Amino acid sequence: MEQLLGQVAVRFSRLPMFPFFDLAHYTASVMSLKEQRGAVEISHNSPIACWVSAMICCFGGSILSSLMLAEPPVAFLGNTTSVLLASSVWYLIFYCPHDLVYRCFAFPPIRLMVSGMKEVTRTWKITRGVAHAHSHYKNAWMIMIVIGWARGAGSGLISNFEQLVRGVWKPETNELLKMSYPVKVSLVGAVLFTMQHINYLPVAKHNLMFFYTIFLVVTKVTMMLTEHKTSPFALFEAALSCLFFGWEPTCLKAKGEVRLPNNGTSTACDLGDSGKKKHAKKTE
Amino acid sequence: MEQLLGQVAVRFSRLPMFPFFDLAHYTASVMSLKEQRGAVEISHNSPIACWVSAMICCFGGSILSSLMLAEPPVAFLGNTTSVLLASSVWYLIFYCPHDLVYRCFAFPPIRLMVSGMKEVTRTWKITRGVAHAHSHYKNAWMIMIVIGWARGAGSGLISNFEQLVRGVWKPETNELLKMSYPVKVSLVGAVLFTMQHINYLPVAKHNLMFFYTIFLVVTKVTMMLTEHKTSPFALFEAALSCLFFGWEPTCLKAKGEVRLPNNGTSTACDLGDSGKKKHAKKTE
Amino acid sequence: MEQLLGQVAVRFSRLPMFPFFDLAHYTASVMSLKEQRGAVEISHNSPIACWVSAMICCFGGSILSSLMLAEPPVAFLGNTTSVLLASSVWYLIFYCPHDLVYRCFAFPPIRLMVSGMKEVTRTWKITRGVAHAHSHYKNAWMIMIVIGWARGAGSGLISNFEQLVRGVWKPETNELLKMSYPVKVSLVGAVLFTMQHINYLPVAKHNLMFFYTIFLVVTKVTMMLTEHKTSPFALFEAALSCLFFGWEPTCLKAKGEVRLPNNGTSTACDLGDSGKKKHAKKTE
Repeated sequence: MEQLLGQVAVRFSRLPMFPFFDLAHYTASVMSLKEQRGAVEISHNSPIACWVSAMICCFGGSILSSLMLAEPPVAFLGNTTSVLLASSVWYLIFYCPHDLVYRCFAFPPIRLMVSGMKEVTRTWKITRGVAHAHSHYKNAWMIMIVIGWARGAGSGLISNFEQLVRGVWKPETNELLKMSYPVKVSLVGAVLFTMQHINYLPVAKHNLMFFYTIFLVVTKVTMMLTEHKTSPFALFEAALSCLFFGWEPTCLKAKGEVRLPNNGTSTACDLGDSGKKKHAKKTE
Repeated sequence: MEQLLGQVAVRFSRLPMFPFFDLAHYTASVMSLKEQRGAVEISHNSPIACWVSAMICCFGGSILSSLMLAEPPVAFLGNTTSVLLASSVWYLIFYCPHDLVYRCFAFPPIRLMVSGMKEVTRTWKITRGVAHAHSHYKNAWMIMIVIGWARGAGSGLISNFEQLVRGVWKPETNELLKMSYPVKVSLVGAVLFTMQHINYLPVAKHNLMFFYTIFLVVTKVTMMLTEHKTSPFALFEAALSCLFFGWEPTCLKAKGEVRLPNNGTSTACDLGDSGKKKHAKKTE
Repeated sequence: MEQLLGQVAVRFSRLPMFPFFDLAHYTASVMSLKEQRGAVEISHNSPIACWVSAMICCFGGSILSSLMLAEPPVAFLGNTTSVLLASSVWYLIFYCPHDLVYRCFAFPPIRLMVSGMKEVTRTWKITRGVAHAHSHYKNAWMIMIVIGWARGAGSGLISNFEQLVRGVWKPETNELLKMSYPVKVSLVGAVLFTMQHINYLPVAKHNLMFFYTIFLVVTKVTMMLTEHKTSPFALFEAALSCLFFGWEPTCLKAKGEVRLPNNGTSTACDLGDSGKKKHAKKTE
């Protein structure tokens, strides 16, 4: 049984992301963008700003990690196939007559599948980011965590600047001040994969990938199905907050917040479920 | 006749930009900066912020393309002669007693000549940007377009951050949301020169440079003389917009906008004529 | 006597910054951050944003100069010891029960010592920045000045973006528009050390380091003791301003401003004394 699971994990870890999982990632990202306030108007008034915004949503992780490692942030444009794929998705979702493509993907079962597949790409991005940082900086585990995190949750972390392209500026909030669930889970993933990479974690890489992905997909689907906004980390965070950052008042306050966690303010690109149902109801 | 034209084009394409055309570029850029609201006060209260702002206007293309290709964005400071030339122009235009130098260059015929010469530098910047990107990324035509565009219209594209240096922040607008004419024409140029570079366009480089420059100068001079704000691309844009991004309402809206195009909101550095006459009247 | 002074200067220039002076720098930076409005709330609501903000304050010079030279801005994370040291300081100052550590360092004599030691690190940072830029760009003195300045006053120069991490956005002011004293003195230092480096200044490096540091420490301590906000450069600036940027009205205005210089608006990270006493009174 264990051997079978091991084989499944190995096979899973060799799964190619291109083209289906990448397509799902582009679709989920662009749909979240379309659900942002004002995005549809911008798509008509200024297709180029809309396209740039969509590309930042789709390739945000690559752009952010390139900036951090002083590699060309436009390098992703060199991968013509991916960019054309993402552009096609953007075009179909924003400009298809009668909004057909958007409505099709907004159909709950399809959306659920697309969101689940998008989560799978997150694992791949984090592991690639960690390995890439390791190839530049041997054993600089902090850089590995940061790059893994940036790859996994890049579009969320640079959402302030993605919004700026669309003429929206919300300085009072950002993904560091109020982390959305995808940004949190990417950070956890980056820490885990970095520990695995420098052999602090006695787990094989394919097993970690397998179980982390399952955790990602299951929590994502559960959160979408139950419309439950509470992060699965809420209790853990509260405990950690109490332990490290809390003398009494904070601790009490933190405990109080567990009941009303504020993860609903996720950003355009990494938002996967919170805005969708309201919007879906409106458009249908 | 054709041979003669070819010879003229070859000679033209070997024209050195330094020092006269570069000087015209610095002059036009710094004058546009001075015509921005609040720039004169800042030049007296904080000469350093004003100088930094002027350098971003003069070398914005180089800064932006360096950032995109992960090359040192301060590299332009290594070209001491150019920076000293631009700084002298900045000093004379902002601080000359009785505003003599500014008034001299604001004299319409001189301004017309300076603006025309500035447009010539645009062609050179775009071709150099495309060639530079090609030397890094073989056949990555999207990167070539982006770098050529960034070089040609850099100061416009980063105008939000140039304004930030002067304490001005206008997030609701940027050159992607509402492209000014120079940014548009640079994009068209970048596409053309990239196509020529990868042999998709059956034109010799010197011919393309020659005719593109003539188009740039003629449209610029015409727009300045007639105070006509309509971009020569307006009809073409409307058609494109109808074809690709338009089902009925957008298309109608786009057609309606052709009569009232809003290209007047050009930015500090690439603005060449819109602000000039009003200001000139005030100062005289 | 002169020989003795020379020996003292040589010994001084070999002083290791790690760990005591670096610790003083981290302490002074993090304390200034804690004294910013809203920082304490953020430290409880979002420890990660607070930590990122603290790291930008502590390593701002390194981050900014890396960005300018297209080196990885996250490279400072590779120096695990320094980052852990700075993180410990951040943790103790923000989260120590009953604010014990903060109150201890806010005790005026200790604060005076810490601020003095922080100024010593400034000299080292500037000289390293100038030497580093020189190793990349031979004789590009403008780049050397800019990198030296960025290293010496980095956290001040990027304070707008450090504030953005904490959800604060003040576009109307920045350290170029209204230079605080540390930013000014770093610029002067960068100019001096660059001139020394390219042999325009007939002074030995260790002597310049010695006297510049003494000047830094003495002016800092004097400004803190007398609560005097006037920069020692005020008169010099006014003269320069009159000479270069002034026809009559500006000149008169500049002279009038000497009596009321507005250096009090220093930023979080480089602020060392202005905010301290008021806050110290409140907390005690």
